[in-house]
Amino acid sequence: MNSEHLFIKALKGETVERPPVWMMRQAGRYLPEYIELRNKYDFFTRVQTPELACEITIQPVDLVGVDAAILFSDILVVPQAMGLEVQLIESKGPILPQTIRTQQDIDDLVVGADAVGALEYVSKAIKLIKKELNNRVPLIGFAGAPFTILCYMVKGRGSKSFDKAKQFCFSEPKLAHQLLQRITDVTIDYLHAQVDAGADAVQVFDSWSGMLSPDDFNEFALPYLTKISDSLISRVPVILFPKGSWYALEQLSNTSTSAIGIDWCITPQQARAMTQNKKTLQGNFDPCKLLSPIPQIEKEVKAMIDAFGVQKYVANLGHGIMPNIPVDHAKAFVNAVKNYKNNISYGLFNSAERKLI
Amino acid sequence: MNSEHLFIKALKGETVERPPVWMMRQAGRYLPEYIELRNKYDFFTRVQTPELACEITIQPVDLVGVDAAILFSDILVVPQAMGLEVQLIESKGPILPQTIRTQQDIDDLVVGADAVGALEYVSKAIKLIKKELNNRVPLIGFAGAPFTILCYMVKGRGSKSFDKAKQFCFSEPKLAHQLLQRITDVTIDYLHAQVDAGADAVQVFDSWSGMLSPDDFNEFALPYLTKISDSLISRVPVILFPKGSWYALEQLSNTSTSAIGIDWCITPQQARAMTQNKKTLQGNFDPCKLLSPIPQIEKEVKAMIDAFGVQKYVANLGHGIMPNIPVDHAKAFVNAVKNYKNNISYGLFNSAERKLI
Repeated sequence: MNSEHLFIKALKGETVERPPVWMMRQAGRYLPEYIELRNKYDFFTRVQTPELACEITIQPVDLVGVDAAILFSDILVVPQAMGLEVQLIESKGPILPQTIRTQQDIDDLVVGADAVGALEYVSKAIKLIKKELNNRVPLIGFAGAPFTILCYMVKGRGSKSFDKAKQFCFSEPKLAHQLLQRITDVTIDYLHAQVDAGADAVQVFDSWSGMLSPDDFNEFALPYLTKISDSLISRVPVILFPKGSWYALEQLSNTSTSAIGIDWCITPQQARAMTQNKKTLQGNFDPCKLLSPIPQIEKEVKAMIDAFGVQKYVANLGHGIMPNIPVDHAKAFVNAVKNYKNNISYGLFNSAERKLI
Repeated sequence: MNSEHLFIKALKGETVERPPVWMMRQAGRYLPEYIELRNKYDFFTRVQTPELACEITIQPVDLVGVDAAILFSDILVVPQAMGLEVQLIESKGPILPQTIRTQQDIDDLVVGADAVGALEYVSKAIKLIKKELNNRVPLIGFAGAPFTILCYMVKGRGSKSFDKAKQFCFSEPKLAHQLLQRITDVTIDYLHAQVDAGADAVQVFDSWSGMLSPDDFNEFALPYLTKISDSLISRVPVILFPKGSWYALEQLSNTSTSAIGIDWCITPQQARAMTQNKKTLQGNFDPCKLLSPIPQIEKEVKAMIDAFGVQKYVANLGHGIMPNIPVDHAKAFVNAVKNYKNNISYGLFNSAERKLI
């Protein structure tokens, strides 16, 4: 093992012999070992019990062989810590019975040390995970992005389009910005606490930013993503993943972030061109494609790495792995990255080197 | 009134004094007059009774003042005509109890004259609408795109991601292409029947193509959109609307289509650049923004037209109007387009003219 892990080196833009690989939602419902624990303990018991969160976090490292672990948790622990009830019932999606609509609602939210204090169980879990991982792979901490958390706080549940949340932003922009700032403040403290406990990198999931127009992304999403990145970047590498917001790639490439996550609805070539190779890119295999036959998965993984190039790249899915993926197919994805060999491919921006071979 | 309508001229790329305007789903649930009819007649009674379809189609012309009418119908009348049961229950979304998974399922589908014959009620409705419209505005016919219809046929209902349908395409590509071709054949005949009856233009809605990666769009969506456009374009202007498939704009601009619909998740500048001003663009106001105060709507409509330019442009939403939009706000949107005046804006590609003013 190198003195620094492949994953961290790729995030820092250092030269690597192959791309690192992990999968969003890798600790989850496609693993029989996870389902066993799910059948015994409810969601928040799993999340809030450090021993369980630790076991679940490490499962895909042992079972699938990923190059990084990601904390088993949920983005909705932040609204919960800010005083809102969150119900997470399997197969039903999240429900927040008390939604945010007024100034009073925002004033009543818990912020500061009280909010982060309520997330102490996460720090405990991280310390335990780090001990159990024993430096085999790095650990990714994470949080939801402020706009995505606002979506759940305002709508009170999942939605196809989060119209209600967008309506709140458009009709009450001052309140929206107040709310976004409060979420940002808590999120920054929370991510620092994760780093204090041992997280080696952090990822910020803006799962619903792709519902925003480019102008509205610039108003309601980008400034808060930037603040989070700016605050954390001196301590650990940061990955911003505003799903669907391909139109913001150029702007994101000018922020402090180390890496940008992208979904499968953009070609690697387009993403490299929009980011001008300034940042490490992470993605972007269509999770549905893990249902293809294994030889097809292997072929498409190779094509994906050929297109992104080996450097400044973290192989991943473009969204979370689905419950119906056979474990063998997940392993095939991971192994296809680990076995990648292509001496004629060093990425789009090394055509000189490519010519030399 | 000009000898040719503003809407048709804009689709053909002819010079217009202002952009035409209509709204997707303009005949629908935000109109009290529609809700009255909905409370009296079930969905397929409204769709299949020419007098009712006619009344509903014309409502937004009279009540909101749009520049084009669009046939009141549903994209799922095609799978219905191909022999599949379709249940459309208000507020529940569509259900197709009998899904397509095997060669036998595909072989059993109704095609050819029998399928189009089952849609005779649409031709009757169109003839009646044309008579009642009396050339006030043109009438748009429409159909769902083959990939989107496949999504419903395979999944059997709406979905956030249509994973099952994509899995079918990825694991059974031969069957998928057979199915797509059959849907395409029926759709082409169906759209020709709409033109025979009097439709002045046709729009093809690929509502779920944005779930596909660029490569998969090229395999499972684009060829069939192209076939439909190629077959219809010599008779009427064609609008292709593959929602979310921004990455295909350059390719779409090289097809025979007259116009391309776009959603709000792309700037007008990006869309113009990717299509190199070859095609008329239609869109792309975020439907949620119709919930903003009216002065804000007026301001943003003006900014939208400034950015697209007056020529080769059809003002529209980026998706269907929502049930909770006040009629006054819909009217404000339409009127803001009709009242557009900006002599210094003739679009991005007339900077020479712009300098002259």
